[in-house]
Amino acid sequence: MQKEEKYSTIHYHNYLELDQLLALQNKRSAALGENAHDETLFIIMHQVYELWFKQILTELDSVCHLFRDERVNEDNMNTVLLRLKRVSAIVNLMIEQIHVMETLTPLDFLDFRDYLFPASGFQSMQFRMVESTLGLREEDRLTYHGKSYKIVFTDAQRAQLDAIEQGGSLFELVERWLERTPFLQFAGFDFLAAYRAAVDRMIEKEQANIMNSDYLAPEMKAMRLRMLGDSNSYFKHVLSQAEHERMLAAGECRLSYRATVAALLINLYREKPILNIPFNLLMELMNIDELLTTWRYRHAQMVMRMIGNKIGTGGSSGHDYLAATAAKHKIFKDLHNISSLLIPRSELPDLPEDLNRNLGFYHSAQV
Amino acid sequence: MQKEEKYSTIHYHNYLELDQLLALQNKRSAALGENAHDETLFIIMHQVYELWFKQILTELDSVCHLFRDERVNEDNMNTVLLRLKRVSAIVNLMIEQIHVMETLTPLDFLDFRDYLFPASGFQSMQFRMVESTLGLREEDRLTYHGKSYKIVFTDAQRAQLDAIEQGGSLFELVERWLERTPFLQFAGFDFLAAYRAAVDRMIEKEQANIMNSDYLAPEMKAMRLRMLGDSNSYFKHVLSQAEHERMLAAGECRLSYRATVAALLINLYREKPILNIPFNLLMELMNIDELLTTWRYRHAQMVMRMIGNKIGTGGSSGHDYLAATAAKHKIFKDLHNISSLLIPRSELPDLPEDLNRNLGFYHSAQV
Amino acid sequence: MQKEEKYSTIHYHNYLELDQLLALQNKRSAALGENAHDETLFIIMHQVYELWFKQILTELDSVCHLFRDERVNEDNMNTVLLRLKRVSAIVNLMIEQIHVMETLTPLDFLDFRDYLFPASGFQSMQFRMVESTLGLREEDRLTYHGKSYKIVFTDAQRAQLDAIEQGGSLFELVERWLERTPFLQFAGFDFLAAYRAAVDRMIEKEQANIMNSDYLAPEMKAMRLRMLGDSNSYFKHVLSQAEHERMLAAGECRLSYRATVAALLINLYREKPILNIPFNLLMELMNIDELLTTWRYRHAQMVMRMIGNKIGTGGSSGHDYLAATAAKHKIFKDLHNISSLLIPRSELPDLPEDLNRNLGFYHSAQV
Amino acid sequence: MQKEEKYSTIHYHNYLELDQLLALQNKRSAALGENAHDETLFIIMHQVYELWFKQILTELDSVCHLFRDERVNEDNMNTVLLRLKRVSAIVNLMIEQIHVMETLTPLDFLDFRDYLFPASGFQSMQFRMVESTLGLREEDRLTYHGKSYKIVFTDAQRAQLDAIEQGGSLFELVERWLERTPFLQFAGFDFLAAYRAAVDRMIEKEQANIMNSDYLAPEMKAMRLRMLGDSNSYFKHVLSQAEHERMLAAGECRLSYRATVAALLINLYREKPILNIPFNLLMELMNIDELLTTWRYRHAQMVMRMIGNKIGTGGSSGHDYLAATAAKHKIFKDLHNISSLLIPRSELPDLPEDLNRNLGFYHSAQV
Repeated sequence: MQKEEKYSTIHYHNYLELDQLLALQNKRSAALGENAHDETLFIIMHQVYELWFKQILTELDSVCHLFRDERVNEDNMNTVLLRLKRVSAIVNLMIEQIHVMETLTPLDFLDFRDYLFPASGFQSMQFRMVESTLGLREEDRLTYHGKSYKIVFTDAQRAQLDAIEQGGSLFELVERWLERTPFLQFAGFDFLAAYRAAVDRMIEKEQANIMNSDYLAPEMKAMRLRMLGDSNSYFKHVLSQAEHERMLAAGECRLSYRATVAALLINLYREKPILNIPFNLLMELMNIDELLTTWRYRHAQMVMRMIGNKIGTGGSSGHDYLAATAAKHKIFKDLHNISSLLIPRSELPDLPEDLNRNLGFYHSAQV
Repeated sequence: MQKEEKYSTIHYHNYLELDQLLALQNKRSAALGENAHDETLFIIMHQVYELWFKQILTELDSVCHLFRDERVNEDNMNTVLLRLKRVSAIVNLMIEQIHVMETLTPLDFLDFRDYLFPASGFQSMQFRMVESTLGLREEDRLTYHGKSYKIVFTDAQRAQLDAIEQGGSLFELVERWLERTPFLQFAGFDFLAAYRAAVDRMIEKEQANIMNSDYLAPEMKAMRLRMLGDSNSYFKHVLSQAEHERMLAAGECRLSYRATVAALLINLYREKPILNIPFNLLMELMNIDELLTTWRYRHAQMVMRMIGNKIGTGGSSGHDYLAATAAKHKIFKDLHNISSLLIPRSELPDLPEDLNRNLGFYHSAQV
Repeated sequence: MQKEEKYSTIHYHNYLELDQLLALQNKRSAALGENAHDETLFIIMHQVYELWFKQILTELDSVCHLFRDERVNEDNMNTVLLRLKRVSAIVNLMIEQIHVMETLTPLDFLDFRDYLFPASGFQSMQFRMVESTLGLREEDRLTYHGKSYKIVFTDAQRAQLDAIEQGGSLFELVERWLERTPFLQFAGFDFLAAYRAAVDRMIEKEQANIMNSDYLAPEMKAMRLRMLGDSNSYFKHVLSQAEHERMLAAGECRLSYRATVAALLINLYREKPILNIPFNLLMELMNIDELLTTWRYRHAQMVMRMIGNKIGTGGSSGHDYLAATAAKHKIFKDLHNISSLLIPRSELPDLPEDLNRNLGFYHSAQV
Repeated sequence: MQKEEKYSTIHYHNYLELDQLLALQNKRSAALGENAHDETLFIIMHQVYELWFKQILTELDSVCHLFRDERVNEDNMNTVLLRLKRVSAIVNLMIEQIHVMETLTPLDFLDFRDYLFPASGFQSMQFRMVESTLGLREEDRLTYHGKSYKIVFTDAQRAQLDAIEQGGSLFELVERWLERTPFLQFAGFDFLAAYRAAVDRMIEKEQANIMNSDYLAPEMKAMRLRMLGDSNSYFKHVLSQAEHERMLAAGECRLSYRATVAALLINLYREKPILNIPFNLLMELMNIDELLTTWRYRHAQMVMRMIGNKIGTGGSSGHDYLAATAAKHKIFKDLHNISSLLIPRSELPDLPEDLNRNLGFYHSAQV
């Protein structure tokens, strides 16, 4: 298209390439002579999902690109946040779409299921790309009968997936960005030392609550104190770098020590203007993680309703496979775990005035 | 494709024709040298809508086909119901999709809006086909600056729309099906006479309620009695065929007298087994009508947020146009009006035993 | 209230007892001198849940009552279906309510969490009643630190829960109703024998598909044939009563043999008029089960976000407990498993004419 | 309650005052001897709505309080935003609740409708308080048969509503806050002058687009140029203070000139850190307005389904009344109209460096 065509004929129909788009729903059942009405729905449902996957990839790629820019600036972070919110909105819609899928009944599906063999949603390249771009690694994934999930793809596709896995996922980009947070040690204020003291005060208080309760029987008190001791151990994540390194090595967590401490600071001081968008950004990453999990989970429920415990057309165990990925394919677990580390506002140490100003707006500091 | 290919190579990727599908998102802004990130979303949102329109048309066409079959049988009516429910599920999802559209902000839209000129959602052929297939007539529609909505289409498309408008819409097919209801006069039972007596009893009671109320001031009593008189006039729809014919002629209603009475009977005796699916079917038609109205309405809200009161790219008045169609483009209004005609169960006349049996199951009548 | 008061003063405000209702939100934090803004939300959220629980119990009790009536008739079954659909609509709303709960942030919750100790959602009597009325048994439940879930209740409440558990849950009432299905053996038609033959034909076909595939490597063929063998074993549920009894004894399933076969028949011949409502009724039971599972699951996600892995105020392990009940507290699993037993319509045996008539309407059989 | 009771016996059941709460569902139909099953749902639905109204009022009151504080600071604005988002989440849930209301069918409602006479949702004091607190004035409201909406309330309630109407609604507080925006004229930068020049450039471009189009017939070009002229007139809102004052006097708009210009600036430069929360806050106010409108609209649809065009129990015209409030009871219309005034980013004037710094963070300006 040339520059001068700019304002020449453009019609909704051409712009959306509807002639081509609406010619891509070719039923196997019709081609093979036994037309099944509901196969059109089956095709369109999956094509819509693939269009949304493309949109999600478009957003995630742009977000990664913005994070890669050395000079990440505040305006960009707002753009990143809005694009991640868009991804959430799309995954949310994908979850709602399951209600449409559920109008396809098991008996109607059985009318054309044979013709699809051995195709399977397992073979969606774009969905794998979404997972890998977010940060799901080969080792985090369920295997496919003991083999890599990549065996269902062509060589070219596998190379593409490898490139994503090696190229720096959103997880790693966010980790590096967190590590650059400048406020962890600031002009004589040691965030971790202040936090450690606050945690100790809080745990003492909770112990006293349990001990002083009139309501709890002695055995319940003992049990609760034991549980409190367990919960206490969560704080070791941040209170001891050595312990954190051990957990990293053992695969019990994934986010680096410095990034974890930064995420905690952002969570605790989220009201400070300069931390507002970073906090919302971490929330949105967790949100996407949760929504994808819910989608897999609802998808598994739907497959259960559709084929029960039968094997899927692609040879996976259908429902069980999907239910297992819902539990396992989480990426930002370490951010979720930050919640365990939060303490009441009343325990939070006051910030030195100089730091406080650095977390605020220029204009407010001038007036 | 030949029979023997049946179980040869089929892969998710080929089945869904993803190479073609995912190559149809070509941004005008990119072609014209000023790439706008958000145009991809704009294209995909509309392509998804068009895919859903295709699915809705697939269902509506099959439903019309089943209604046209002279030997409409009960199994078919269940199929009709399930397909209409699917249409509802899809329109519901279309409404949810507006949340994704709302992630496109006015400022981001303005980045590429100029390039789309003069294309417009107004030019969606498939959506017009959906409306016409359901039963929206040319005269029910808003005009486009005083001209037919068809002027934005090609000759071939106009011919296609004409054919749908003349070929018997779902509205007309349902009307004929209602007119065939066999139970209106049955072995000495005159449904309308019994209903008329019940209405009279009910209105007398309501008048007494108002007169006897300790709470209402005299002027309020008078006002309410006046309103009751007005509501009374609704019953003329069914109690007087002459009045109904007058309303039909004046365009105040559209459904034939016999079909209206049948719809009322089905509403009142919905618990009878043989009327269960017919009742649910009428409900689903109203549901689709309401959902499409909600979609137009939410769409209008979204356009307001996006471009305010500016004109749309297609030259419509944007928000105002959509808001007006939300109010005007209703098809099954006459079914909604049936609600005004319902009376309490306690007023409903007992059915003669023979009729009761004919509204039940064969098996139950045998045992 | 006396009869003559019928139409005397009644006002929205009195009718809903708003003076009392709106005086029940008494914050512990305010009483204890450190008012926490968000505690009002916390109270209202839970009160709304309890109001919905009461509504669900109202519906479930009425449904059980209708099932208990010896002369269960068709009109009643429609009422049962509509009330179960209402339960689904409510649970669905309960799931949506989690979005409101999520506006309470971890830090805001920590402001008053201490004051609630040791109260806990674990102590909701009504929710336990919902679960037990549906059919969850003591032995299906997670224990509470090795003890019965009932230990948090008073003696009177425990007695009430015992009564529900012993009085015939909805699960058992449905089971008995299924067992009464009259069409399993009908005038020379043996449903199970016909089904068995159809299953054999279908499995042979699937084996052939795998063997003849050009696409699958030999090892994949072997693997799939193995999986097919496994899936084959699901059919033993119904094809062998002895096997079914063994599974019942081993706790691998719960629904009686005769009820299972009836549920299968209803699923396969759902289009027959007399089976339409029974089929929808079974679907709705599964729906409620799924929705409650989704609610527990989303609830667990929300708790994770709120307190991470900390212990709940009631001494449960919070997130883990809820996530475990989401997986375990399912009641109508056996109905879900019916999906595994479905076979394509084309394999379904034709029904003898006499049986076909008995599954239809009286009126249709007369004309 | 005394301080020392802090950790004494507290149980979920007592905390939520469930004995009282669950005793407030007293059916009129039962009291009057003709028990209607569905009246429980009717009561609970409305009680739940009233609980949510109380929560909304709690949030709005706190938000107004924060706005009234002379020293409005940035942390507070974040709190305001989160509380407004909570209001949105609640109204959204209220909309979803209509699905539960729809399970009450017209026939079931008619079973007990008579007993409710003349109570009506019209008499909800709390909902009126929500509307008035947001900023709906007596003159913006539909009248009730030519009288004030307040005539259904007691003297004490009327006084309460008067106090809210006179005490400074959220609308007025937001207006004053907008008027205080410091960046409209800044060290030699005149926002309005720069904006006026940009608008002129944009309109010239759009005119050229229309003139140069190959696609549009001459009459269509003329029509579009006319429409562009009309849309042009929207800009007068901000480009001419005199015109704005005329519109204010004529009741065509409500927001003061200075506040309107500030809202435009915030919309155009939303990416600037210091404008981020103000922008999201304006968005959220529009969101609440839209959601309340949608709720009224869906409510009207539901009433149509329930009683058709009959009069409501409270003597309003039911559906028509609700549909009219959906169209009329909007509060932040002027914020919605800002969309008409937006122009493409490429037209936006560059900000002087000094102003740019003042819109950013202190920390960024230091490094």
